[in-house]
Amino acid sequence: MTLLNMENPVFVVYVIAAAIMVLKIMLQGWMTVFRMLKSNSGLVSPEDLQKGLINKDPRPEQLEVNDYVDRSRRMHRNDLENIPGFLTAGLLFVVVDPALWLAQVLMYGFVAVRGSHFIAYATRQSHEIRATFYTIGSLIVIYMAAHVLWQALQ
Amino acid sequence: MTLLNMENPVFVVYVIAAAIMVLKIMLQGWMTVFRMLKSNSGLVSPEDLQKGLINKDPRPEQLEVNDYVDRSRRMHRNDLENIPGFLTAGLLFVVVDPALWLAQVLMYGFVAVRGSHFIAYATRQSHEIRATFYTIGSLIVIYMAAHVLWQALQ
Amino acid sequence: MTLLNMENPVFVVYVIAAAIMVLKIMLQGWMTVFRMLKSNSGLVSPEDLQKGLINKDPRPEQLEVNDYVDRSRRMHRNDLENIPGFLTAGLLFVVVDPALWLAQVLMYGFVAVRGSHFIAYATRQSHEIRATFYTIGSLIVIYMAAHVLWQALQ
Repeated sequence: MTLLNMENPVFVVYVIAAAIMVLKIMLQGWMTVFRMLKSNSGLVSPEDLQKGLINKDPRPEQLEVNDYVDRSRRMHRNDLENIPGFLTAGLLFVVVDPALWLAQVLMYGFVAVRGSHFIAYATRQSHEIRATFYTIGSLIVIYMAAHVLWQALQ
Repeated sequence: MTLLNMENPVFVVYVIAAAIMVLKIMLQGWMTVFRMLKSNSGLVSPEDLQKGLINKDPRPEQLEVNDYVDRSRRMHRNDLENIPGFLTAGLLFVVVDPALWLAQVLMYGFVAVRGSHFIAYATRQSHEIRATFYTIGSLIVIYMAAHVLWQALQ
Repeated sequence: MTLLNMENPVFVVYVIAAAIMVLKIMLQGWMTVFRMLKSNSGLVSPEDLQKGLINKDPRPEQLEVNDYVDRSRRMHRNDLENIPGFLTAGLLFVVVDPALWLAQVLMYGFVAVRGSHFIAYATRQSHEIRATFYTIGSLIVIYMAAHVLWQALQ
């Protein structure tokens, strides 16, 4: 018997949460592109100073770090530090067959706090607010991984 | 019934594409190692300035950023921003049972554009060329995740 | 027939190794938080210089790079370059139905060398020692991905 199919409601919860988090990662890349184009700065490769469609008026200072663009890259890095762990821990969590309500609370909860973390970071909220959302998301992944490990070692 | 087995031709397409992309990520690490050793620079930790097999003639400027080595690290970061999203979205895509031709176009297409992105970045092609391959790859992952989400919410 | 269930001993090996590696990634984030709070430095966002619970005595130099904190971030980046590849390659490896002993050697071996890499990096061991553990871990993932690709292409 396998639990990894769409007839298992817990797996459907995972599929929904995981698809949203993949979209989150990919769209963060587009936020960086948007901010790079809008501010006409925050480039990272020397060859990007060539004149072209993307860069009509090249200037050397376009390679300097710019908080407006770098903020989106930091948000992306924070995603990469948290979301791939969720994607794997969530899949393993389905396999140990948890209660549906628990999967819903943890997985939709993760989606909600990462969305809140995004808003807090983008709008430059205080470190305390950002840290709160980070903490809840991180604890959810840690709980799922520990629960899975416990079950697998029985 | 599960779709995650080697009798499902769509899953085999995913397994081939995913295995190639994992190799791509891992080999990018070796490109950084090769460039670090070849240029004898681009180190990142203070203790790497100790004399040893890897570093026979330590100099403080080996810790400075060097585009030759840093380019490979940027390529790696770009991989990490795109490939884990593909690995998860692709697995979920198999689970919603798409047409084989569609899976082939999207997954082998992703492998092809990431290979092209690698060549464009390594050979310092213009921002426009690199951005084109990035865009196609990103849209493939976004399409797969959105398709999965749509199916799961039915 | 699926191999992705807890009755398959090879899958159980993967679940244990993968859960431990997810915990490793997440706890690396907490090591950064701990070092940031302990040294009261290594912040990355301008708004973190606001006075608050986390930062009781803000100073502009808190935004400068600090090796104590940055070391944990570099360890995290090294994890992100290696562990997501393992998580996917390991899952695919289960699907091609390898011998149990081989899965145990490769997967528990990966966990052991990444643990060793963590200790070597945290305690500032020489580049050679760190590189040895990195190399073994990377070769394990490369072997698993190549083995999977070979089987899938038969």
